[in-house]
Amino acid sequence: MTKEKNKGNAGDSILEKPISRRDILRLAGVGGAGLLLGASGVGAILGATGKTALGAAKQSDQEDRIGFYGKHQSGITTPAQDFLMFAAFDLTTDSVDDVRKLFKAWTVASAAMAKGILIGENNENLNLPPSDTGEAAGLNPSRTTITFGVGPTFFDSRFGLAAKRPAALVDLPAFGGDELREEWCGGDIGVQVNANDMQIAFHAIRNLARIARGKAVLRWTQEGFQRTSGSDPAGSTPRNLMGFKDGTGNPDVKDESLMNDVIWAQNGDGASWMAGGSYMVVRRIRIRVEVWDRSTLGDQEATFGRHRGSGAPIGSKNELDPVDLNKKDDNGKPLIPVHSHVALARGDGSIKILRRSYSYSSGMDNRTGQFDAGLLFICYNRDTRKQFIPMQQKLGQNDALNEYIVHNGSAVFACFPGVREGGYIGDTLL
Amino acid sequence: MTKEKNKGNAGDSILEKPISRRDILRLAGVGGAGLLLGASGVGAILGATGKTALGAAKQSDQEDRIGFYGKHQSGITTPAQDFLMFAAFDLTTDSVDDVRKLFKAWTVASAAMAKGILIGENNENLNLPPSDTGEAAGLNPSRTTITFGVGPTFFDSRFGLAAKRPAALVDLPAFGGDELREEWCGGDIGVQVNANDMQIAFHAIRNLARIARGKAVLRWTQEGFQRTSGSDPAGSTPRNLMGFKDGTGNPDVKDESLMNDVIWAQNGDGASWMAGGSYMVVRRIRIRVEVWDRSTLGDQEATFGRHRGSGAPIGSKNELDPVDLNKKDDNGKPLIPVHSHVALARGDGSIKILRRSYSYSSGMDNRTGQFDAGLLFICYNRDTRKQFIPMQQKLGQNDALNEYIVHNGSAVFACFPGVREGGYIGDTLL
Repeated sequence: MTKEKNKGNAGDSILEKPISRRDILRLAGVGGAGLLLGASGVGAILGATGKTALGAAKQSDQEDRIGFYGKHQSGITTPAQDFLMFAAFDLTTDSVDDVRKLFKAWTVASAAMAKGILIGENNENLNLPPSDTGEAAGLNPSRTTITFGVGPTFFDSRFGLAAKRPAALVDLPAFGGDELREEWCGGDIGVQVNANDMQIAFHAIRNLARIARGKAVLRWTQEGFQRTSGSDPAGSTPRNLMGFKDGTGNPDVKDESLMNDVIWAQNGDGASWMAGGSYMVVRRIRIRVEVWDRSTLGDQEATFGRHRGSGAPIGSKNELDPVDLNKKDDNGKPLIPVHSHVALARGDGSIKILRRSYSYSSGMDNRTGQFDAGLLFICYNRDTRKQFIPMQQKLGQNDALNEYIVHNGSAVFACFPGVREGGYIGDTLL
Repeated sequence: MTKEKNKGNAGDSILEKPISRRDILRLAGVGGAGLLLGASGVGAILGATGKTALGAAKQSDQEDRIGFYGKHQSGITTPAQDFLMFAAFDLTTDSVDDVRKLFKAWTVASAAMAKGILIGENNENLNLPPSDTGEAAGLNPSRTTITFGVGPTFFDSRFGLAAKRPAALVDLPAFGGDELREEWCGGDIGVQVNANDMQIAFHAIRNLARIARGKAVLRWTQEGFQRTSGSDPAGSTPRNLMGFKDGTGNPDVKDESLMNDVIWAQNGDGASWMAGGSYMVVRRIRIRVEVWDRSTLGDQEATFGRHRGSGAPIGSKNELDPVDLNKKDDNGKPLIPVHSHVALARGDGSIKILRRSYSYSSGMDNRTGQFDAGLLFICYNRDTRKQFIPMQQKLGQNDALNEYIVHNGSAVFACFPGVREGGYIGDTLL
């Protein structure tokens, strides 16, 4: 059984496949030989300059397949996919050689899954368990990325790697408002799977767990979602479960020098094996949605420091208008409250992190009858000590949001640099 | 704040919006005035007959918005959307008038959500809690359907409706292999929300729960998914988490007389208020994925009675080939094992139900370290006593699948007939 994008003949497949802007360009002869369509026609369909059109075409390519190998791991500066399956693993072996074997096997499997093909060779032999569990067979790669990191406990005495622990991979201090529960904390290894399909994301973690058998076990998992790209073709900033846009202030991932400055660990940072990697912070933040839903729109906006509808800073009109904390109302009071989330998270604007969070809904809390729903906050930064920690210390103490949220899970991971083809996850360390 | 599909100007919106086959037809002048594109060009893009092209265009329309009002509730014979949020509610009021008020409020809210517009009028007043929680603002309707039913307990002494309980709304008997847990069982009211967007589905249940405050509370909820339509543009039968196609044997929802025969309750069936409604059975079925993944492909196929890759009955080639239980191998043994799932579920073919199930992944079972994942089995039938129950009795006793699954949740609901515009959910009963 080979996994194929389209099982019918070519005539069927073009009928079933959505037509992308790139297809239009191609069919129209802009990107190659194709149908005849006047230049004005192309303009009318695309309604845009050539530059924007190429941007759109590129996006349509990316939607399908994102390479696993590269300078950096994908899934960090990659525009966020629709779904998340996060898993923390604990190693059950004490042998660094076993870890190496595991990471090698995970590399091969991950590269296959990023391509959207079945894992392994034994998928048709009736006498063996199939090497791929099969629930993603026949599906597009759907922008699958699989991103690996190791937690502080990976550097304890088991593997002789204590000396290699990066100074930036600190255990997080206790923050104000933390109500952490062991069942959603820590892990020797953290794996973030993203895809535009939840079944594909689940398939990835399940198969990684299966491959790990005898070497590592699941410690905790969390599913996540945001609005799908299909229901928001304009690609607006997604809203969190509080109804507010989330991620507006993210640094520009296309600005390479900015990414080197704030996201990618650099050679001189202390742990040379991490150069090109990044530090991931995961926080499971439950939202008390029932309480939030009883507060007024005015309170909600004052809590975030932004307007709910537009996402604009309070007193401004558009989402991307600058956050000016010095603006005052007629009584001389700051328009954006000093304890609002945006005021505290932004501060003087000097600290930047790359947020890549997902909403979650995990059924109902049986003790209270309330939703167990919220945000799996994920961020990447170059040095957690200088970025996430000081930011969260301010938020934990004073954020007006704290009335409505509880941090009940927490983990940090050093996410390796990208894997070159022929190499394996973590090979710069192991 | 009005919820709009596109917030930019027309030039922006056509750039961002995927181009559907219908757009091509329209732009090409087939469906209206548009660009000039040779007839051969249209054929080359569509690669199909006019009939198929119209079918595709229709599907693209449906993808967006499904009306809430109609002869039958939507969400039953509607082709399954990508996501599910199921919720069971318990009433906390003893007043049938309160129930009526609740159902009226739910009707208005559901009709708005099916249209993809914000619920209620107070979404801009700073001094009030917003009437819509906002996390779906600006998104397409994404084929949202909201389907309501009432359980056996709705007909206890509280509301004076015991005499109106349909005979077909039976409490399910105990089945072999049941390991039911109270936390996933029962409910006075069952609500099935489907949409092509998980955030939209969550939004619906959350807002219904909010509207119910003081009248009903959540009893249990379950999120569900299948492969997204985007990752399978060909629309193949979705696979369950065992890697097998699920739903192949479903009756044809376009066959109206068949639907009247097996899905829709009829006037003469006993409870006239249910005419045009249907009985829903919900079973939370955990799959022991770790055990399943250790069984051989041969065992797996013998368990289902189908080939994993193609979905064809064992010994046949194509998914839709007829299931012939009399076919024997060279040794005279049935090709499709007698205790296989398909052999038992199908029986002599006389019992039909409409399955509308979703996979679920609800994190990890902390006691075992295993996935809490499986299938939220949902089916509709005209009379549960004659359809689901005898079928499940056979399966519970003998199904080879039982080695790998556990039924841990269960509920039944009488799903009302459709609501006419101006009416409300359950108005034929209340």
